Formats: sequence, structure tokens, C-alpha cells
Amino acid sequence: MEIAETLRAFLFAGGKRLRPQLCVIGWQTAGEGPVPAPVVQAAASLEMFHAFALIHDDVMDDSASRRGHATVHRSLAAHHASRPDAARLGVNAAILLGDLALAWSDALLHTAGLTPTQLTAAHEVVDAMRTELMYGQYLDLCATGQVCDDVEAALRTARYKTARYTVERPLLLGAALAGAGHGVHEALSAYALPVGEAFQLRDDLLGVFGTPQVTGKPSLDDLRDGKHTVLAALALKRATPRQRNILHTLLGDPCLDETGADRIRQVLAATGARDEVENMINTRRAQALRVLASAPFPASATAGLRQLTDAAMARTS
Amino acid sequence: MEIAETLRAFLFAGGKRLRPQLCVIGWQTAGEGPVPAPVVQAAASLEMFHAFALIHDDVMDDSASRRGHATVHRSLAAHHASRPDAARLGVNAAILLGDLALAWSDALLHTAGLTPTQLTAAHEVVDAMRTELMYGQYLDLCATGQVCDDVEAALRTARYKTARYTVERPLLLGAALAGAGHGVHEALSAYALPVGEAFQLRDDLLGVFGTPQVTGKPSLDDLRDGKHTVLAALALKRATPRQRNILHTLLGDPCLDETGADRIRQVLAATGARDEVENMINTRRAQALRVLASAPFPASATAGLRQLTDAAMARTS
Repeated sequence: MEIAETLRAFLFAGGKRLRPQLCVIGWQTAGEGPVPAPVVQAAASLEMFHAFALIHDDVMDDSASRRGHATVHRSLAAHHASRPDAARLGVNAAILLGDLALAWSDALLHTAGLTPTQLTAAHEVVDAMRTELMYGQYLDLCATGQVCDDVEAALRTARYKTARYTVERPLLLGAALAGAGHGVHEALSAYALPVGEAFQLRDDLLGVFGTPQVTGKPSLDDLRDGKHTVLAALALKRATPRQRNILHTLLGDPCLDETGADRIRQVLAATGARDEVENMINTRRAQALRVLASAPFPASATAGLRQLTDAAMARTS
Repeated sequence: MEIAETLRAFLFAGGKRLRPQLCVIGWQTAGEGPVPAPVVQAAASLEMFHAFALIHDDVMDDSASRRGHATVHRSLAAHHASRPDAARLGVNAAILLGDLALAWSDALLHTAGLTPTQLTAAHEVVDAMRTELMYGQYLDLCATGQVCDDVEAALRTARYKTARYTVERPLLLGAALAGAGHGVHEALSAYALPVGEAFQLRDDLLGVFGTPQVTGKPSLDDLRDGKHTVLAALALKRATPRQRNILHTLLGDPCLDETGADRIRQVLAATGARDEVENMINTRRAQALRVLASAPFPASATAGLRQLTDAAMARTS
């Protein structure tokens, strides 16, 4: 059916496959030899889950593009362009397609050929991950359009939405599948929190200062939505009354143009907020590397994590 | 968190618990003695899944009320009424809440305490059910607002959306949990198809001729949306040019009022479509009872199914 083809196209249009990679590395912290096929399929289920999360996220934000292509709801609307209700049909079909991806991510997991013990352990991690993501998204939703100088609230959302969902839970899923002990789990969580926060902080910077041709996402969306990011909160905290006025007027303006966006970018830089976020990323990078230095992981897993850390911090997309 | 409270309120605001009941009866076709707790929890997971389906369905249709209360997206919008983006926030939060209910229905199933064999068998049924529902919803979506005289297409949607999802899969889930044999599965499917179609046909009649105070749903929504139902398709098939003109003009009109709705109702009655749908329900009822008469079920399960059949056919809500 055409809607499944749309999902296939979305899955293969790009994506860093970060969560499956982290799941495999998590497995390697306690597993030995080649990665078993059931672990690979469980890792793949995370990518299918991520497809669900992105499709619904793009509906909620009404984003126009993702991975350099039209978002799913926009492309489904275009497919039905001859109908007067094309836009609404696109949104509704995308909600359904996201639902399908969520259901199929679950099917990928429980048909992976895991042992009953592995499946129970996997479900525990995945259940927590799903609830945390939805909670993080809900926090994000409520804070959007309500930009304020509460840096801690922005970090809390980042922790749920990204640190746990993108980094910690994929690693813990892999570790659980390998039957890793308490020490490994603890070390993975201690590593994941700073890396995940840094990942979100980089995402926030890319959302405002990134190159759309490289990120695959429009560079005005976060500003037009008035996303409550650490970057924006820090800028408001450090702003002069004139700068604060610019931010309050332009952040969240759905009609913001490139000229307005540049004025915001200037304030984000002039207040030092941009540099401060870069500093926060570096602090978290150092913290993660310290955890790795003393973690009870095999050398290959440590090397994999170190490489991913650097890639996640320095990325341009 | 407040969003979980919203879900709790929705779950306990009403609902016929039809799918859990069918699951338990399905178990009774092959299981003996009191229903085990894991089976009850697996049955409950169907109600949580149904909450997901209804919440997203109401978002897609932008329905105002359900179970005699404001729909979830409308009530979440009211909760945030002081915000300028309240309506959009309500829709987005309802999408998330539906996602959460889908994830939690899965958690209810795999934490039910089923044996690994039962869990594998349950997942097979549930995976099929989820995909069929999404496919049926997608067919429905594409057909909505495109009313035509294709009775067979309307019946096909009913088969996916209702016969399989509401009746067949819940029964088969229960049977799978009891380790029922091939004959029981065959008989349950043979029973479920006519009952499920009849259930949807009754739903279509109630959507147009029902009493909102009893159904808990507005009586203009289906007409305003231009749902492609068997009822509408039959009316178009039998209509005179004048009647066809009335249907094409008024069905799917988002501003339809009670006067217009009454004109549609008159055509649905005058063409004989309403009676024909009642006949179709009766034919399917008889067919289901014939299956029951020769099915290899214990007497208690047969009695339960007979009672549910009558309740589903004659219901007013």
C-alpha cells in the first residue's frame, strides 16, 4: 500500500542511525564476538521508533522539510493535491503513518528472535524510553512559544527528550541484551547524560546557526516556533533591555523572515549566549570522556563511544 | 503528570469494553475455569489500545465530543485556554497522549505475566490487528469527503476497521492465549466477520439517526465529514437525480445544520437505504447465529457470544 511505501522512502532518505549504533555499542560493553542477528534487529527497532517520533514531531511543528526532503505530512498532502482537503488529509495520513511506525517498531523488537529473558529486559528499557520521550515532548510542547530565561527548565526538557531517549536508553537496551551487570549500566548512564545534553545543545545551535542545505531542516522553524532552548534562555538572562525586547518581539513570530532571524542571531551572539552554549558542550564532552576513562568497558566499546561522542559534538547536521 | 490524568479520565468516562469482553470470551472457547489474571490484563490492553485509536480518530475528524464529554484534544485546548495557541496545543498534546496510550497498551500486554509461548501467540494477533486498523483508517481517510455509490468499497473499510479490529482480533487473541486449535480459530473468524460488519452498519445508522444524548457523539459529524458509509453509498445508488443532487450538495458540507441534516435523513429513508442497511444487519445477525450453532465452543462461550451479538446489533449508543 502507498502509505507503507511513504514510510520506506522516509526511512531510507537519510538519518544518522545514531540510536541503533549506540544500542550495538551498548551490547559490546558486555557481549563478545560478532553482534548476533537478534541484537541487530532490536537495534533496528529503535530506528523505526525514531521514524515514528520524527513523523509526529513534524506534524506537531508543521515543519516543511526533514532530511532534505518534504516532511511526510507535506509529501502526503502533495500526493493528494487535487483534493480540496489535501493539507488535512496529509496531516491525518501522517498521524496514521507515525502510529504504524510505532506499532512496527514494537513488532521488530518482539520478532527479533530474542530469548524470553532478553525480551523481558528489553521491554523494560523500551517502556521507559517511550514514556520519557512522550513526557519530554509534552514538556517541550508546553514550553514552546513561552520563551523565558529559565535555563534549568530547558535543560530538563533536553534531558528527557534527548539525553535519555537518544543516548542513554539505546545504550542500556544493548547492555540489557548482553546481560550486562550493574556497574556497566551505571557507567553507561553516567556517560549518556552529559553526551545527550551536549547533543541537544548542538541541535539547538544548528537549529539557529546551521546551514539548511547541510542539516536538511529549515533554519527558521525553531525561531518561528519560539522553542524554549537553553540558547534562548541564556540570551534572555544576559540581555540588555533593548536586546530582551528584540527577543520577545521576534522569537515565536510565525512570520519571521531572514532579516528578523539575523537580528535574533546577532543578539544570541552579542549576549555571549552562543559562546556559553559552546562552553557547555565542551564541559559535557570532557565529563563524558572522564567517565569513559574509568568505565568497565572493553577497549573496542570505549573506542566506539569516544568516536561517537566527537561526531555528535562536532556535527554540522 | 496532568497528561496521564487526562488519559485516566478518558478511560473511565465510559465505553462498552467490548474488545476486552470479546477477548475473555475468546479465551473461554478453549480455556477452562476462572479467567487467569494474565488473560484479564491482556484483555485490558485492548481497551488501552482502543483509547489510543479513539483519541487519534477524534483528532483526525476534529470531533467535539465523545462518551458525552469534550474529546481529548478539545479538553486539553480548554485546559490551556489562556494561551493564544490553545487549539494547536490541544491537538498536539492529544497526538502525544494517543501515542502514550499505544505504548502503554503494549506495556500492559508484555507485563501481563503471560508465558513466552502465550506472549508470542498474542503478539502475532496484536501485530495483525494494529496494521489492519491503521490500514482501515487510511482507507476511511481517503474515502472521506469522496462519497460515491461504491457499496463494496465501504464494506471493505468496515471489514478492516471494525470486523477485524473490533471483533475478530479480540476473539482470536483470547483463543490464542488459551492455546485453542485451528477449528476454534476458524469458527471465531467465521462468526466475527458478519458480526463486525453488522456492528459497523449499526454505527453508521447511529451516526446519522442516533440520539446524541445516548450515543455521546454529535449527530452531524459523519454527515459534515462526508463519511463514505454503506448507508450513503446505497442511497446514492438508489437515488433519483433530485435526491442524488441533495446528497452531493449536503454530504460533506462542513457548515451543515440540522435542517440540512434532516433533508439528508429524509433521502436516506426515502431511497430505502436505511431499511436496506437494517436488512443487511439482520442478514449478518442470522449468519453469525448459524455459525454459533455449529461452532465447537463450550455452551458458556456460545451463550456469551449470542448475548453480545444481540447487544451489538440492537444498541443505541
